[in-house]
Amino acid sequence: MKIGFVGIGSMGSGMARNLAKAGHTLVVYNRSRGPAEALKPAIENIAATPAEAATGVDVVITMLADDRAVEDVVLGSRGVLASLPAGGVHISMSTISVDLSRRLAAAHREKRQHYISAPVFGRPDAAAAAKLFIVAAGPRVEVERFKPLFDAMGQKTFLIGDDAPAANLFKVSGNFLITVVIESLAETFALIRKSGSDHHKFLEVMTESLFAMPVYRNYGSAIADERFEPAGFRLPLGFKDNRLVLAAAEEVSVPMPIASLVRDRFLAAMAEGWSESDWSAIARISYQQAGLKPEAAGKQQSEKSTIS
Amino acid sequence: MKIGFVGIGSMGSGMARNLAKAGHTLVVYNRSRGPAEALKPAIENIAATPAEAATGVDVVITMLADDRAVEDVVLGSRGVLASLPAGGVHISMSTISVDLSRRLAAAHREKRQHYISAPVFGRPDAAAAAKLFIVAAGPRVEVERFKPLFDAMGQKTFLIGDDAPAANLFKVSGNFLITVVIESLAETFALIRKSGSDHHKFLEVMTESLFAMPVYRNYGSAIADERFEPAGFRLPLGFKDNRLVLAAAEEVSVPMPIASLVRDRFLAAMAEGWSESDWSAIARISYQQAGLKPEAAGKQQSEKSTIS
Amino acid sequence: MKIGFVGIGSMGSGMARNLAKAGHTLVVYNRSRGPAEALKPAIENIAATPAEAATGVDVVITMLADDRAVEDVVLGSRGVLASLPAGGVHISMSTISVDLSRRLAAAHREKRQHYISAPVFGRPDAAAAAKLFIVAAGPRVEVERFKPLFDAMGQKTFLIGDDAPAANLFKVSGNFLITVVIESLAETFALIRKSGSDHHKFLEVMTESLFAMPVYRNYGSAIADERFEPAGFRLPLGFKDNRLVLAAAEEVSVPMPIASLVRDRFLAAMAEGWSESDWSAIARISYQQAGLKPEAAGKQQSEKSTIS
Amino acid sequence: MKIGFVGIGSMGSGMARNLAKAGHTLVVYNRSRGPAEALKPAIENIAATPAEAATGVDVVITMLADDRAVEDVVLGSRGVLASLPAGGVHISMSTISVDLSRRLAAAHREKRQHYISAPVFGRPDAAAAAKLFIVAAGPRVEVERFKPLFDAMGQKTFLIGDDAPAANLFKVSGNFLITVVIESLAETFALIRKSGSDHHKFLEVMTESLFAMPVYRNYGSAIADERFEPAGFRLPLGFKDNRLVLAAAEEVSVPMPIASLVRDRFLAAMAEGWSESDWSAIARISYQQAGLKPEAAGKQQSEKSTIS
Repeated sequence: MKIGFVGIGSMGSGMARNLAKAGHTLVVYNRSRGPAEALKPAIENIAATPAEAATGVDVVITMLADDRAVEDVVLGSRGVLASLPAGGVHISMSTISVDLSRRLAAAHREKRQHYISAPVFGRPDAAAAAKLFIVAAGPRVEVERFKPLFDAMGQKTFLIGDDAPAANLFKVSGNFLITVVIESLAETFALIRKSGSDHHKFLEVMTESLFAMPVYRNYGSAIADERFEPAGFRLPLGFKDNRLVLAAAEEVSVPMPIASLVRDRFLAAMAEGWSESDWSAIARISYQQAGLKPEAAGKQQSEKSTIS
Repeated sequence: MKIGFVGIGSMGSGMARNLAKAGHTLVVYNRSRGPAEALKPAIENIAATPAEAATGVDVVITMLADDRAVEDVVLGSRGVLASLPAGGVHISMSTISVDLSRRLAAAHREKRQHYISAPVFGRPDAAAAAKLFIVAAGPRVEVERFKPLFDAMGQKTFLIGDDAPAANLFKVSGNFLITVVIESLAETFALIRKSGSDHHKFLEVMTESLFAMPVYRNYGSAIADERFEPAGFRLPLGFKDNRLVLAAAEEVSVPMPIASLVRDRFLAAMAEGWSESDWSAIARISYQQAGLKPEAAGKQQSEKSTIS
Repeated sequence: MKIGFVGIGSMGSGMARNLAKAGHTLVVYNRSRGPAEALKPAIENIAATPAEAATGVDVVITMLADDRAVEDVVLGSRGVLASLPAGGVHISMSTISVDLSRRLAAAHREKRQHYISAPVFGRPDAAAAAKLFIVAAGPRVEVERFKPLFDAMGQKTFLIGDDAPAANLFKVSGNFLITVVIESLAETFALIRKSGSDHHKFLEVMTESLFAMPVYRNYGSAIADERFEPAGFRLPLGFKDNRLVLAAAEEVSVPMPIASLVRDRFLAAMAEGWSESDWSAIARISYQQAGLKPEAAGKQQSEKSTIS
Repeated sequence: MKIGFVGIGSMGSGMARNLAKAGHTLVVYNRSRGPAEALKPAIENIAATPAEAATGVDVVITMLADDRAVEDVVLGSRGVLASLPAGGVHISMSTISVDLSRRLAAAHREKRQHYISAPVFGRPDAAAAAKLFIVAAGPRVEVERFKPLFDAMGQKTFLIGDDAPAANLFKVSGNFLITVVIESLAETFALIRKSGSDHHKFLEVMTESLFAMPVYRNYGSAIADERFEPAGFRLPLGFKDNRLVLAAAEEVSVPMPIASLVRDRFLAAMAEGWSESDWSAIARISYQQAGLKPEAAGKQQSEKSTIS
């Protein structure tokens, strides 16, 4: 197929590469040209505008940082919506708000275009290795037609129905569950460390019994080791996703107290200036509140003053 | 080996049966005689007192409901502690407080007896099927010596060191992680249901991708179906375990905000009178706060009044 | 003075009337004409547009429901900003976001107009009785010049400096403190009622000792009596103000856990459909979670079912 | 009257002195003799045991630190309960648990003695100045009879009924309200400071309008100035009172989410080692989480490291 691919960031570059590897022809657009150039020669062409990437293709895929970026690229004056012909297809794979997804669905419908929401679970390494989990929703026929593309980018594709925004709701809900894993491990490790027991051992026991999953194993070992840099997923992006789930819940008047609590963790972490750390660095707040000092750095560090 | 087994409840009966099946000789004690009788002829004898179950055996195992029961049986006037000879071994498998475990360890040490803490993860069905996860800590030589007993009761045994109370700390911490799974799924399902999407489908996606584990699958489906009776683990016991983790954290001045939040869920659930339900019924509070009515019963139920 | 007054709602009508009573000449604008008509003959004129109210006057005052209303009236095409001459003065008395206040300050500055922020504490009855507390900030000379207007509308005016948005920050912070009074009384009353003691008596003791203030007395007696209708300040407006304080805190990365908790109360209250009740009706959530039924209605009400 | 007074701490010494000043004859007991000696010559006698202070007197008053101290003094082998004659009266003025108060009431009733609960609001300076607020409950005739004693110690006495433990419930509930004032001011000041506005000015505005009360003024200025030493009421005592309200609420299955949140603040403050500070020092946690450094010490302090 001929695919317009918009957004060559840390996720998009791996995804685009995997589509090319599967034999598809790509026209890519990225705000800064560098990352697009880096895909050569796997791709056919670099578009000068999103509009160009949406022209003369079977489908245009967007994989961007946030709502604003998607609004610019899709709804902007020379954007995807304006350029896509009737019957054209837009697959939005970014993590965006349920509300924006709903507006995109309506806008495309009005132009007799097809809109598919297909956000992904996985970090850049999973994107590069075609190991993403992809949750796709939209008009059945179109979703089925493009399933081979999803399969080229991920290890598993879930077709969850024809209501596109539901895929975004699933995505922000899933990310919420991950933040809860992070926060709950952090609180538990704080307890175990402060009690003088071995939280590494605890993690080992848990991940070889009840919680034998990468999400517990990987975040768990990062949190246990206080290894938050370099960031796999930057803390402010985690905060953004927390806002998305809270916004979705606010729309329908649903209190989510753990999400509120996690929000306060993100704020405290940003107040500490940890914006370049991984989102799992919210764990440090639990350690800090328990009066624990960083383990590795423990020896060099002077005693904490009474006040700060 | 000859084993004294104290506590033939829903967990203990399966565990004792599996020990007998593995060829061991059991003398059992239970406050009410019925459950002990039900183990015949697998067991050799029924003891009239805990003391009797601790006499002339290689080891005495206790598997009881809570701190008070263990204190009665072990520290009581005709209890295990008083009857066990020097060099005797007590394996405590109950979910008790870290503090009591510490006191038991000290008391046994003073009498030159050996104390092993070996709490378990798993419900009655896992106990019956010898599928428990067992976390054992205590004097190395003794723990190794009795490992075959653990293996007869569980699918995996973790030897985590010689500090017995650490095993109890691991147990209450692990149970805390489970309550967090419950609460986070409940909040998420409330959001998805109220948004008009399919939370069963969401659970399916999650448990076939990031959260492919029984703990998410089993609790998730119970919560999604609002199937909280009959109880696998009664709500007040869940509350008790929440108290244990909070008490352990209080001892060492560690705030655990999600544990505090879950505590309030348990209180609200008990205020509703759900003490006979499974501990996962705290999920109903999230549904209730979202203004959701029970799904199954939805049609018959009249509209909620403005106030209640 | 000649005053343009925009926004004749439940607050604005009392305020405008008091200005007229103090001898000032008023040109008023309201989106729907009715409330403006009702002020006759106290006022001189009814303007057809906000622009008209901002023309040929010494000062234009806005007293509107929320950010959007203020943006429409001030920044709209035929709005206050466009019509006010250089040197003109806009006094914004609405409860708006700190962020919008900052944008208004900048916009007026750019047009060489003066901008004063002067939000008020008090309900419609206090507005009618000229008993408001007014917190004013802006260019010193202008604030001093218009102090007589504030004094005509309130019982006390606080001049807090020249940074206009700070007045809005004080306002949303003050409202937050009120919500905390509401929530803390609700939790306490729930405890005392459920314990079988007299929460009315408790309120009496508190408000004749440590908490001898109208805010505790008035909200306290409403909450104790479960008297939430008719609304003095509607619940969704309270939620709006909660959002304003959380937004201000998010801007500067400050976690405010009680504000987060109160947010969840508002959401739960709106999920129950209490949008026409007073904002103090969030207290009902505390009662509900304690398993308490409305006192007055108690006798007629059937027992709560196990589930809902 | 002849009064036995047990517990000459920072509160008790002022209270005893005021009773003596009002013309009463006192026999005092204190665990360590020093503070009792310091009351001479205002008092008649120093008792060697609590029992002695309860012998040959019209009434015995206890004013002790916590449940344990009261249990020792009252229920101990040579305690008040054993020594008081039938018809004797015990006035318990300590801040104790509702549960203990209930047990004391029962124990005295069984011995045909009278038990009055009369906890106080106020710090040591208020105790010295006879400015306490006293909440008394118990058998009507007895409470009325001893009202002059209360009046000698406080500025106002509230007789709330004949159920003695209710007075303790009121006391722990009132203290909860104070902690909420502290925490809410802390969060608000954190927001205002971090926004670059003047939180001292904010406090001034609030305490001259909606919150014109000593409790806001005094705690407010301490928190604004970060003046937490010397302690008026030590932080661990505040934590103890928080436990009392949570325990009372747990008994009747009432969730009190702000109390839970305040509990976590106390734990974090104790983890920082602030046990010698005033309980209002929990405010520092809000400052810390906002990334604020102590104001006074700001200049000398080096920048906070990335991690701690």
